[in-house]
Amino acid sequence: MQSGEDKLIARYFKPLARHPGALGLTDDAAFYTPPEGYDLVLTTDAVVSGVHFLPDDPADAIARKALRVNLSDLAAKGAAPTGCLMTIALPPAFSEGWLRDFCAGLQSDCEAFGCPVFGGDTVRTDGPLSVSIFTFGIVPHGAMVRRKGAKPRDRVVVTGTIGDGALGLRLLRDPAKAQAWSLNQAQAGHLVDRYRVPRPRMAMATSVRAFASAAMDVSDGLVGDLAKLCDVSGVSAVIEVDAIPLSGAARRALHAEPSLIETIATGGDDFEILCAIAPEHVRAFQDHARAAGIAATDIGEIVEGEGPPRVIGADGALLTFEHASFSHF
Amino acid sequence: MQSGEDKLIARYFKPLARHPGALGLTDDAAFYTPPEGYDLVLTTDAVVSGVHFLPDDPADAIARKALRVNLSDLAAKGAAPTGCLMTIALPPAFSEGWLRDFCAGLQSDCEAFGCPVFGGDTVRTDGPLSVSIFTFGIVPHGAMVRRKGAKPRDRVVVTGTIGDGALGLRLLRDPAKAQAWSLNQAQAGHLVDRYRVPRPRMAMATSVRAFASAAMDVSDGLVGDLAKLCDVSGVSAVIEVDAIPLSGAARRALHAEPSLIETIATGGDDFEILCAIAPEHVRAFQDHARAAGIAATDIGEIVEGEGPPRVIGADGALLTFEHASFSHF
Repeated sequence: MQSGEDKLIARYFKPLARHPGALGLTDDAAFYTPPEGYDLVLTTDAVVSGVHFLPDDPADAIARKALRVNLSDLAAKGAAPTGCLMTIALPPAFSEGWLRDFCAGLQSDCEAFGCPVFGGDTVRTDGPLSVSIFTFGIVPHGAMVRRKGAKPRDRVVVTGTIGDGALGLRLLRDPAKAQAWSLNQAQAGHLVDRYRVPRPRMAMATSVRAFASAAMDVSDGLVGDLAKLCDVSGVSAVIEVDAIPLSGAARRALHAEPSLIETIATGGDDFEILCAIAPEHVRAFQDHARAAGIAATDIGEIVEGEGPPRVIGADGALLTFEHASFSHF
Repeated sequence: MQSGEDKLIARYFKPLARHPGALGLTDDAAFYTPPEGYDLVLTTDAVVSGVHFLPDDPADAIARKALRVNLSDLAAKGAAPTGCLMTIALPPAFSEGWLRDFCAGLQSDCEAFGCPVFGGDTVRTDGPLSVSIFTFGIVPHGAMVRRKGAKPRDRVVVTGTIGDGALGLRLLRDPAKAQAWSLNQAQAGHLVDRYRVPRPRMAMATSVRAFASAAMDVSDGLVGDLAKLCDVSGVSAVIEVDAIPLSGAARRALHAEPSLIETIATGGDDFEILCAIAPEHVRAFQDHARAAGIAATDIGEIVEGEGPPRVIGADGALLTFEHASFSHF
């Protein structure tokens, strides 16, 4: 009596639904009892084959990326993840082996991040594979950190390193670049891995709540995302290009091809936390980050005024970029 | 500085985000403060062009269907809607006029159902248009009605009429059927409308909570969905085919082509509430339904045992169907 769809759900998705409210995915809906005194934080992101990941990326990495781009939003808002729901549109040619690997990657991340699957919908499509994940988390009532709130004199701080994901995508599209950029195998692998599997900075959520006046995650490009944060806060910013934190691999690529600074600063796929922090709190934020094994780098200053952030080069001259960030349209 | 994507969001999606927690869609995430003593009810559904709706269905109807299939799940669980998030994958050829109409349909329904948009993600795809909506609602703590819980001697009750949506799809695929089924224009229009724009039975949510021992919405076909409810409840059922509530249009089509009973009983796209109700509560449930202007029809009985529900024909013989319900795989 079970349909093919029911069998897929029972075999592959049910093991992801560890929360009792998920009812083993045997119901129309799930339930969740929110803890008293907390707000829910809600976010959703869709990833499409050929747009957000490459068709031959490993299935488990696709699942991890689909979840982690959501978790990165929660971390930047100061929230702890609680659960997720997923819709997946499978093309006719998908194999059960692919789905098994996809679900193995998802299960591993759901467990690692404490974010079980509460429900979903599996449909077919004649188009490319796509995955939409909706994630919900919690923060103490009123404590969600917004993009709005950056104040003049705040420092602009970013976690981790910038540009690895965008450079990884360039490498996947043109593997010959590894040699042109003088990268060894480990360095090339690092960049590709950062494109495929973001590192959402969940360990920084409480520090973001404690110290940031405004925060967001860097997904569409550092310069463009900073512009969004400034715009909604009614301020501008000045950042030093030399202060942007780079991995060893990115630094080497940039040395070989200096114009890559545009890819690094505007390419996106970073999934780091970008925040504005009052000068007196920067040190404490950085101490918390260090304790979590995460870099937190002061790259510039929030300033009065309007208009996009100014990016100052090593020579003191203003840098300009063709596109400040990635846009689908 | 605004990207094309930002402009689309500001122009078309922001007016849908009326809840203060949505922050006008200018942030990475939204927040929601759940009322004390309530559980959240969470559900998600995806609709894909050519699978769940036809490519030339009106844009506003596609939006309404995408939301209403979710709302129907909430109603069947006894929940009141609170809000939704949406991801939409737009093919290269989409027009802004199409998007304007889509958002107008969505806005009208978000307002009518008290279900504002809290967030979303707009991406492009080389494949068919698809829309994933995640909806959350609330019920008093512990009160979500499940599929599990049907007991022998409970009556099987269904709201509204069954088969209209599936017949409407048949008509859209083969308009000559209208004449073959002796339907006038209004009758044909009724069936097509029910396919395109489901009627989620939100007015029945409190009655479902008060009286149903188990409930679900009929989306994949009456017989198959009843089988799912019985399976998870550890019971079986017997229903009378003559008791299945039909619209005038469906009755006429069935009279012209008796084999349509299979489409009606197993075709899906009904989005009515199917529930098991103890015999002593059926009258009260029907009274509540009548007061809300909704039919609630007793179509059979939950019985002990296992296995799929038995469907008894007018002649007392057992009916069998090739597929009990729609499955994507």
